[in-house]
Amino acid sequence: MSYTDVFSSFFSPSSIAFIGASKNLHKWGFNILHHIVKGGYSGALYPVNPNGGTWYGIPVYPSLRDIPGAVDLAIIVVPAEMTPDAMRECAAKKIPAVVIITAGFSEAGAPGKELEKQVVQIAREAKIRIVGPNTMGIFSGYPSRINAIMGATPLKPGRVGVISQSGNLGTSIAHRLNRREIGLSRLISSGNEADLTVEEYLEYLEHDEQTSLICLYIEGVRNGRSFFSIAKRISRTKPILLLKGGTSASGAHAAMSHTGAIAGDAAIFGAMCAQTGIIQVDSIDEMVDIAGILLSQPEMKGNKIGIITQGGGWGVLATDLCARYGFELEPLTSSLVEKLDAILPPFWSRRNPIDLVAPGRVTVITDTIRLLVEHSNVDAVLLLGLGYMTIRARRWMQSTVINIDDVREHAEHMISEEMKLMKLIVDQVRGLSTPVIPVIDQVAFDEIMDNNPVKFLDSSGIMAYSSPEYAIRALSRAAWYYERQRARQ
Amino acid sequence: MSYTDVFSSFFSPSSIAFIGASKNLHKWGFNILHHIVKGGYSGALYPVNPNGGTWYGIPVYPSLRDIPGAVDLAIIVVPAEMTPDAMRECAAKKIPAVVIITAGFSEAGAPGKELEKQVVQIAREAKIRIVGPNTMGIFSGYPSRINAIMGATPLKPGRVGVISQSGNLGTSIAHRLNRREIGLSRLISSGNEADLTVEEYLEYLEHDEQTSLICLYIEGVRNGRSFFSIAKRISRTKPILLLKGGTSASGAHAAMSHTGAIAGDAAIFGAMCAQTGIIQVDSIDEMVDIAGILLSQPEMKGNKIGIITQGGGWGVLATDLCARYGFELEPLTSSLVEKLDAILPPFWSRRNPIDLVAPGRVTVITDTIRLLVEHSNVDAVLLLGLGYMTIRARRWMQSTVINIDDVREHAEHMISEEMKLMKLIVDQVRGLSTPVIPVIDQVAFDEIMDNNPVKFLDSSGIMAYSSPEYAIRALSRAAWYYERQRARQ
Repeated sequence: MSYTDVFSSFFSPSSIAFIGASKNLHKWGFNILHHIVKGGYSGALYPVNPNGGTWYGIPVYPSLRDIPGAVDLAIIVVPAEMTPDAMRECAAKKIPAVVIITAGFSEAGAPGKELEKQVVQIAREAKIRIVGPNTMGIFSGYPSRINAIMGATPLKPGRVGVISQSGNLGTSIAHRLNRREIGLSRLISSGNEADLTVEEYLEYLEHDEQTSLICLYIEGVRNGRSFFSIAKRISRTKPILLLKGGTSASGAHAAMSHTGAIAGDAAIFGAMCAQTGIIQVDSIDEMVDIAGILLSQPEMKGNKIGIITQGGGWGVLATDLCARYGFELEPLTSSLVEKLDAILPPFWSRRNPIDLVAPGRVTVITDTIRLLVEHSNVDAVLLLGLGYMTIRARRWMQSTVINIDDVREHAEHMISEEMKLMKLIVDQVRGLSTPVIPVIDQVAFDEIMDNNPVKFLDSSGIMAYSSPEYAIRALSRAAWYYERQRARQ
Repeated sequence: MSYTDVFSSFFSPSSIAFIGASKNLHKWGFNILHHIVKGGYSGALYPVNPNGGTWYGIPVYPSLRDIPGAVDLAIIVVPAEMTPDAMRECAAKKIPAVVIITAGFSEAGAPGKELEKQVVQIAREAKIRIVGPNTMGIFSGYPSRINAIMGATPLKPGRVGVISQSGNLGTSIAHRLNRREIGLSRLISSGNEADLTVEEYLEYLEHDEQTSLICLYIEGVRNGRSFFSIAKRISRTKPILLLKGGTSASGAHAAMSHTGAIAGDAAIFGAMCAQTGIIQVDSIDEMVDIAGILLSQPEMKGNKIGIITQGGGWGVLATDLCARYGFELEPLTSSLVEKLDAILPPFWSRRNPIDLVAPGRVTVITDTIRLLVEHSNVDAVLLLGLGYMTIRARRWMQSTVINIDDVREHAEHMISEEMKLMKLIVDQVRGLSTPVIPVIDQVAFDEIMDNNPVKFLDSSGIMAYSSPEYAIRALSRAAWYYERQRARQ
């Protein structure tokens, strides 16, 4: 079976056998099956359990042999000691792809190691490929939703492929992407990598048309040379964001106990990432922040920043952060100052950061962006201090002090003005070749409301940041990536 | 008037005159007055506007002269050019304390500077003390709630005093504290500091019994020597968390344009902070993270960490972070391993990090904490990978696939078990002399639900962290502070 065919058995199977189906809520055999069904898998699904019967209306087969048609993918959740037998049945049924969720293999001492060897042996002989064992499962966004994963978050389909050597971190990365409306093409919790390895998953995502950005959590790789050579090739076309676990001596020791990975020298690994164009990150939050810029913003072509702010303090902090991350604040030419004088209130700062003071109509903000981009050499614009208008309007509407009828019209106007501004920003980002990064204060992130500017931007595919440090840190890594891409050409 | 009396006029006035009351929602004269009334100020409130009438049922006085009784505090929002006259009326009315919200003074060029001089002159002659001008206002939590602030977030009373040279950052700090259920004693947006300065506010908070921790956003201080000598004295009894704006050359320039502050040399400022025991932070999120530990956890007395995790990946990342922040992972003695063997599942990690695998009953977790604290030398415990039980139970209850009646009992049990665990953790933190820092995955932070473990911990005064990096970074700064305190004694 060809390489592509194997992975299509995993990620677009026509039929799935779920070996170890259960109605016991304590069991993974309940939860993962539940997630697959709830997730809306549209192919044929065959739960398997010796007791037969039905699983909430779905017929349960006593064994694989009893399943009438062909099976593309088997998911195994039975105990470790029963897994070799299940694998033999998969071989007999000629199933090409198996996800072994079950733990208790090489990560669990000598008897588990022996069991894993046995399972791999059966697979090799029958030409079965394995994800796992000891994995939280897989997710596929296209063509059919396969939510065969233990994580409790419902996942959205999208353009990010995630490979993780920790199930928890994989699902946490997925959740953090999803909460910002960034969907996933694939999620692979690679587990013990007894057969398929992170290198092979990478090569699959390289050719996967649904994937345009790759997120990795790695504790160690079997073959560093091959890993970096694949990553180097991929990163020309698809950015790779990587979080490395086990960068400290004690962390490497912990990783050994977790996945058995040999973590290797962190400094060498870091240098190799930089050389091969991998964007190495310090946390999964940073990973999502960078993904937001790479997925939604045009290329940043240099290191000159323009800051537009409502609020002097935000401008000062952002300026410090730009210096820390190697960006330069582009001075405003006198002709640009003149142009801005014509639209801004009298006390505006007349320098970069452009402190708008109280700009009046919201179009002043996007006009300022336009003038800045057209009449200066800025390579990116930071837009700070947004997101208070709807909140303020809601405070009026929720007031028990004032007469709501007196304020309703004005409140609705404020809300529609802020929404108008957000739409203008989205249009501007889509129309410009310069990134414009919106920073919206935490208060708007926290408020559950209609017309939330953060939700609007997120669902329009333009990620907003809750504080300038996250925006600037992420922008600096995106800028590094683009600079490398240009140098390669 | 004594020092204490002046500040009690600002923060516990029996009566407030609000000069510039308005029904125009565009105006600060509407919004701040609205916030004061909505905030529940219980003293006498006198809105002032030449047109008289009423403001949503409250009589409006045409001028200060028309107010019958004495006035402790005046809040001025009239335009800059009308402020000297308003100040003269305050002098005639013998008002000891004035907050000048109005902008357009020294921050706005030569004519504004002249106006500010004039205002200060009037104040000096009449022995009036001024907060501002160009401030977002003040908040007081006790004894009466005074929410005389432009920020849209309703503020909660508590133990943190905030002084900010940026109104936006002051209100953003306040919001970030409040969302984690940390309340404020006072919030002072210091504005141009034409009269009262950050040094004087600090001295006030030093003696303010309502304040037990101080958060500062500073762009520059008039008298560095005096500032650091006050801060050194205060930090013996109340931790000071400080974010410095203008640490870069360009940021200092921006600060000059924002508040006119001479930012000074960042390296010297940083060294002075370290010497005087000020905890300097890089962001307002970090400030809140550290406040959470200082307010809710016992003193960390050394640098040895114990990690308890549900999820190997979290343990690996936390171990790396401990190394980065100078913590040591305390090895487990064989006698402790033996004790843990008796309560943990067979495949637990048998080393620090203690990977619980699947611990079964929740008391196993707190028993593990207890054994670790009692039978090792750990100075703090990190508790990772919490917060999935309620989420999972909710997924069952929200399912359209399964029979809800079949799962209800079990789901309710899961939710009550997680709540039981949270209560046990709160009791344990209160009963132990070792910090135990809970880290709960982002998914629980995002889920709006009853029995949210994050909300429960927050409202019990034990702050939870959404990722180990925030917990460990904050713990490292708290540990530094405590180490300094011990060295001083």
